[in-house]
Amino acid sequence: MKEEQRITGLHGAGGEVMGEFLAERVLPKFGDRSSGRIGLEALDDGATIDLPTGAELVVTTDSHVVKPIFFPGGNIGTLAAAGTINDLAVMGAKPLALTLAAVIEERFPIGDFERILDAFAEVLDTVRVPLACGDTKVMPPGDVDGIVLNTTGIGAASPAIGDASFSPGDRVIVTGSIGDHGMALLAAREEFRLATALASDVAALWPLIECALSVGGVRAMKDPTRGGLAAAMNEMARKAHLCLEIDEPSIPVKDSVGGMADLLGISPYEVANEGKAILIVDADHANGILDVLKAHPLGADAALIGTVTDEHPGRVILATAVGGRRFLDMPLGDPVPRIC
Amino acid sequence: MKEEQRITGLHGAGGEVMGEFLAERVLPKFGDRSSGRIGLEALDDGATIDLPTGAELVVTTDSHVVKPIFFPGGNIGTLAAAGTINDLAVMGAKPLALTLAAVIEERFPIGDFERILDAFAEVLDTVRVPLACGDTKVMPPGDVDGIVLNTTGIGAASPAIGDASFSPGDRVIVTGSIGDHGMALLAAREEFRLATALASDVAALWPLIECALSVGGVRAMKDPTRGGLAAAMNEMARKAHLCLEIDEPSIPVKDSVGGMADLLGISPYEVANEGKAILIVDADHANGILDVLKAHPLGADAALIGTVTDEHPGRVILATAVGGRRFLDMPLGDPVPRIC
Repeated sequence: MKEEQRITGLHGAGGEVMGEFLAERVLPKFGDRSSGRIGLEALDDGATIDLPTGAELVVTTDSHVVKPIFFPGGNIGTLAAAGTINDLAVMGAKPLALTLAAVIEERFPIGDFERILDAFAEVLDTVRVPLACGDTKVMPPGDVDGIVLNTTGIGAASPAIGDASFSPGDRVIVTGSIGDHGMALLAAREEFRLATALASDVAALWPLIECALSVGGVRAMKDPTRGGLAAAMNEMARKAHLCLEIDEPSIPVKDSVGGMADLLGISPYEVANEGKAILIVDADHANGILDVLKAHPLGADAALIGTVTDEHPGRVILATAVGGRRFLDMPLGDPVPRIC
Repeated sequence: MKEEQRITGLHGAGGEVMGEFLAERVLPKFGDRSSGRIGLEALDDGATIDLPTGAELVVTTDSHVVKPIFFPGGNIGTLAAAGTINDLAVMGAKPLALTLAAVIEERFPIGDFERILDAFAEVLDTVRVPLACGDTKVMPPGDVDGIVLNTTGIGAASPAIGDASFSPGDRVIVTGSIGDHGMALLAAREEFRLATALASDVAALWPLIECALSVGGVRAMKDPTRGGLAAAMNEMARKAHLCLEIDEPSIPVKDSVGGMADLLGISPYEVANEGKAILIVDADHANGILDVLKAHPLGADAALIGTVTDEHPGRVILATAVGGRRFLDMPLGDPVPRIC
């Protein structure tokens, strides 16, 4: 008898397995109509909806299952609000409103729920965005572990910016240090319980992205969450059928993050970031964009890390400090579950 | 030592306890700004977002935790798509796009996930609405029971219709029989496993509501989901500070649903419906609206069930067959968890 196929952690881990699963099993069911210019099939950070008026709305949705719920640098509420705002921001969309749906385990402390809502509200305040509507469901113990949040964000763009409209010669920028969120979460996990100074980078990036957009020349953006920098850059390279050639020593990685990565044997390029974006910009604007990013508190560690080429279409190449070159592959998935 | 306050099932059950919790603990955190004319604080089926162009978007979000996942008449996918479309429809909004976020337990059968997606897609097809974007998260066994879906819907209205803008003399219409979904779910539960002919009424109501709107005179609408007809009508009466006087024998309840209700000792007015709406309409248009509803397959059992008065502001009164009158109270919550 043929064994029934079952969902594994990799189906939701943002890497190679999830991508194939979506392409083969999910997208074909919804192929008959598209919401707008950038639809479901683009598998971008969000999708566009054409309005009768000709403007473009951007919509994005995410569930948040992070564990632990409270972590150095924030909590699941911070993550839900910032994560959704960032998905809008990297589409070039000014956030208009967010939704918040909570699924809560019975006997979850109301005080903890309020701290989560306070953190969510605090992020909305920083970008002056309203919560439009919400939903609360409670499940018996054993049916859900703690709390799961879902947020949808709606933004306005003119027009929306995808993640693949770039050309050879364009430059690659990251807005700050890589790997902070994932490594902080891992260190805080019960199985490690490491006392470190690591903290998540979780932050709402719209104010930073807005500055970059004002310079002009932004071709494509993406926030490197699940699967980290490696997954995000591979997705961009594949979609554009171009190569991202990255100068590894230019990638900002904090010493504490690099140390933890070595200790755990996990690449800092493969874990989630929650307050960083990758920008691909035209060469003429690269320095101007870098300057405005570095002038903003959220972009102080921004760096120019690479160039778009047509050498190995669909691949990401790391040029190492000693002159070597290697492919940075798409990770199979996040190294551990429930990172965001 | 004071015991820590904890979440209970009633906090998510759509009744009195949830309403107080939202008003006292949640809304104050988000009071600084509103998305539009009908904001979070209205606690309506959805909220409006003002667009720069002057049009109104309607947005609504819901998590779906129904158990069993497959039930007579549909599955969690049918429910997620139809429930969200219905929340838009009762705001007078034509659905533009939906989002779908799935949180899945590891080892969940992929075949079952595909059946759920097929059901979701089938509902979208009936209303010709695209899935704009999605998200997939996988949790280890024990962290989530089976599958939880979240859907957000975005629609366009000109203008949106709230649930409380009615006046004495207006008439109350329900679009069909009451209690079908809740009773079918209860009968299908493991603890009952009753072999009945009951089936959920789950259906996307936009095509039906669109017909009613074309007649004119629709003042307010609501879909009686969690907490059933009793919760929905009490919410409307309270918000409008008016009384809904309902002629009980006019409320359509199928014999099979009434029989199950008697057997379980649960009121058919207090369980969720997933393919019905309450319309409050002006008296001059009532018969015209009833006619178009009854001419549509989804509204064949529509009925005029009552009148708006100012006799007992904020209350719902049932006039019984034998001439008695009693209050239909707001339920504390749904009689059982995970009904929708």
